Amino acid sequence: MSKTYIGLVHYPIYNRNNEVVTTAIANFDIHDLARTSRTYNIKNYFIIHPLESQIRLAQDVMDYWKTGVGSKYNLDRKEAFTTVETVPDIEAAVDQITAKEQARPIVVTTDARIYPNTISYGHLREKIAQNDHPCLLLFGTGFGLEKTMMNQFDYILEPIYGGGEYNHLPVRAAVAIILDRLLGEAWWQAGNTD
Amino acid sequence: MSKTYIGLVHYPIYNRNNEVVTTAIANFDIHDLARTSRTYNIKNYFIIHPLESQIRLAQDVMDYWKTGVGSKYNLDRKEAFTTVETVPDIEAAVDQITAKEQARPIVVTTDARIYPNTISYGHLREKIAQNDHPCLLLFGTGFGLEKTMMNQFDYILEPIYGGGEYNHLPVRAAVAIILDRLLGEAWWQAGNTD
Repeated sequence: MSKTYIGLVHYPIYNRNNEVVTTAIANFDIHDLARTSRTYNIKNYFIIHPLESQIRLAQDVMDYWKTGVGSKYNLDRKEAFTTVETVPDIEAAVDQITAKEQARPIVVTTDARIYPNTISYGHLREKIAQNDHPCLLLFGTGFGLEKTMMNQFDYILEPIYGGGEYNHLPVRAAVAIILDRLLGEAWWQAGNTD
Repeated sequence: MSKTYIGLVHYPIYNRNNEVVTTAIANFDIHDLARTSRTYNIKNYFIIHPLESQIRLAQDVMDYWKTGVGSKYNLDRKEAFTTVETVPDIEAAVDQITAKEQARPIVVTTDARIYPNTISYGHLREKIAQNDHPCLLLFGTGFGLEKTMMNQFDYILEPIYGGGEYNHLPVRAAVAIILDRLLGEAWWQAGNTD
């Protein structure tokens, strides 16, 4: 099992007008990212939010499925939520991983632009398979992570090209595609003889 | 541009107790599947539902973004919804594609089990790239498409393996991963020299 973690960042985030804001936690992000993380054996999915009240809201949703009425109704959802942790900022997520793995994680994010430290999916997939370092994949909400913060990360993953000009994937889709590219089966190597 | 279409099927669907039911249209499915479809140049995303009242609800949501207040606020969402069509059943979707493309589409779906007509991602990717036939990819809601209906389709795509035992991806994640495998860039062929 790879030492891969993901984090969904709610601050510092750009809004539509290029202002730095804190975004709200979306219920569907909690559910979808937990299920996708569990499917790809992600060790923890960190919900990263600076506000105590928002973290409490996310905890209430998860408690319903982990120990409340939902836990008797949907065991799969209960299992998915075992991967989720809540932290106030990125550094707290990095610290938790460092303590657990006894090694600081490589911190990677995605962006629509190319940077000097842009890394290809193939290269990062190899690095993860080598399993030398833990890896924290960060995803932005809103209109993306604030730029000076971007520069502090080890690598930026290439944008996802779908084949056209339109590039507005939901974060729930981007996480699924990226985890499949980095951790999914090597389906393209299978024989095409059927 | 490939002649690829997707459809989200709400009847006939299994529920948790293996009974055949009609599922409700989920607001997030409309948004997420439209955005992912537009990113991967899908020609139409068909919302397939037998009930007029549910179709009207989906239309109301989309009208808000296509011509209502939302159309002035979020142009990307307006563009995503141009791909969406609503139809009462699968046959109506097939008929629309046949009329538009002057050829009956290959109809493909996904399932957690292996069938005699199971097809690999690599093989279907090649078929789509050849562009000889239009292709309709169907996705189930709830606990999946009713079995006698499955037998009428041309191919069943292999299950998505994430590397573990847990296999409960949200349909929004499954659609994203499958479109990326079938239509995304061949990222695994890029040189890993960085």
